[in-house]
Amino acid sequence: MTGFISFVSSGPGDPELLTVKAVKRLETAEVVLFDDLSAGPILDLVPPEADLIGVGKRAGRPSPRQDHVSRLLVDHARTGARVVRLKSGDSGIFGRLEEELVAVRAAGIPCEVIPGVTAASAAAAAAEIPLTRRLTARRVQYVTGHDVAGALPEDLNMAALADPTATTVVYMGRRTFPKLAARLMAAGLPGDTPVLLAEAVSTPDQRLSRHTVSSLSETEPDIASTAPALILYGPLAAQGCDE
Amino acid sequence: MTGFISFVSSGPGDPELLTVKAVKRLETAEVVLFDDLSAGPILDLVPPEADLIGVGKRAGRPSPRQDHVSRLLVDHARTGARVVRLKSGDSGIFGRLEEELVAVRAAGIPCEVIPGVTAASAAAAAAEIPLTRRLTARRVQYVTGHDVAGALPEDLNMAALADPTATTVVYMGRRTFPKLAARLMAAGLPGDTPVLLAEAVSTPDQRLSRHTVSSLSETEPDIASTAPALILYGPLAAQGCDE
Repeated sequence: MTGFISFVSSGPGDPELLTVKAVKRLETAEVVLFDDLSAGPILDLVPPEADLIGVGKRAGRPSPRQDHVSRLLVDHARTGARVVRLKSGDSGIFGRLEEELVAVRAAGIPCEVIPGVTAASAAAAAAEIPLTRRLTARRVQYVTGHDVAGALPEDLNMAALADPTATTVVYMGRRTFPKLAARLMAAGLPGDTPVLLAEAVSTPDQRLSRHTVSSLSETEPDIASTAPALILYGPLAAQGCDE
Repeated sequence: MTGFISFVSSGPGDPELLTVKAVKRLETAEVVLFDDLSAGPILDLVPPEADLIGVGKRAGRPSPRQDHVSRLLVDHARTGARVVRLKSGDSGIFGRLEEELVAVRAAGIPCEVIPGVTAASAAAAAAEIPLTRRLTARRVQYVTGHDVAGALPEDLNMAALADPTATTVVYMGRRTFPKLAARLMAAGLPGDTPVLLAEAVSTPDQRLSRHTVSSLSETEPDIASTAPALILYGPLAAQGCDE
């Protein structure tokens, strides 16, 4: 009895931004392990008789231990079940995919990884801007705004992040942005570099707003908000539309 | 008579890696403008009575002028048609989306941008590796390996690209990789940094192979190959499986 595990990327939240392959796996799943961020209407695709198991680790809240999640995956697959591990956005980007893959491989369980639409692509599309532009935004980079303890990571490559000719997207970085902004400006990034703040991208609660690195660093984050926020800065952040 | 233009990201090639929203737009399209790279089975989703217009600009081959593509888009939309502009991968990443968006907005034609799965995510998923890892691969970045003239861009941020703690993905960079590799190693990136070369990702011709920055720079590219190739380097490129 060896089951099969599909690591399925859920995309940014809108069920229509799932891939066709992801929909197929959800519709035939027998067990689904999901994070908070990928829940909601996407889970309506799962057959009613399937087991739904929440293993959320939303930033700032207590998380189940990672080895517990891996153990659940392996144990369910060993019953012979078709298991879906649903991960928000693209599972390869800040999704802690590796720990689970290693555990699944060590247990000898066959698996697949289904890529998805990452939040940066969805935010740019919603604002109708590209992430790259010839000559002035030739590089696009994604970083996370918090480490295991929730603080801004210390060992940032400031030459990379303060580059005014790149598009930089900070995932889960709203709370730590004042600290990052101070470091960016100290490293030479102009304070008037445009910023797109994208909250709850692709969901009914989506909010896009325009700032600068300097102005956003002086704006208090809405700490009551639980919507995932993404900060995109660089020359392209000033383009496009607001809603 | 104002039509509507959907900029639709086709994903890396496998029709199952289209989003649900992209499929819906293709199935109801009246006119589809497509690039070579996004053609093939994806176009089978388009109704037989729709106009299919190839506007390919594959790397290394002569391209139609960009303003000609924008003109076609606007002219077709002005007949009142539902127009799909199909772009390979995620349209916001090295897709030259901006020129067309600007032209469409200037003409006052309503539009939308539908994000998609970029080739980097699909390549990593095929190799069963993540693009980021806590502590050792905290940043992921995408660059293009050729400029308008097909050469390696000159003004690269080497502090960003030679960072051994990032995952870097070079789009359309197979031919210019020897030159890039020399610059990376001169900037301090170890020659034994792992490389995943991913060709024709997610298609029946998919090929994944493992190299190092040094070894790939000494391997002649298969110049007869027209498969799109993606080069991913960094600590994670050594992980995962080969097929």
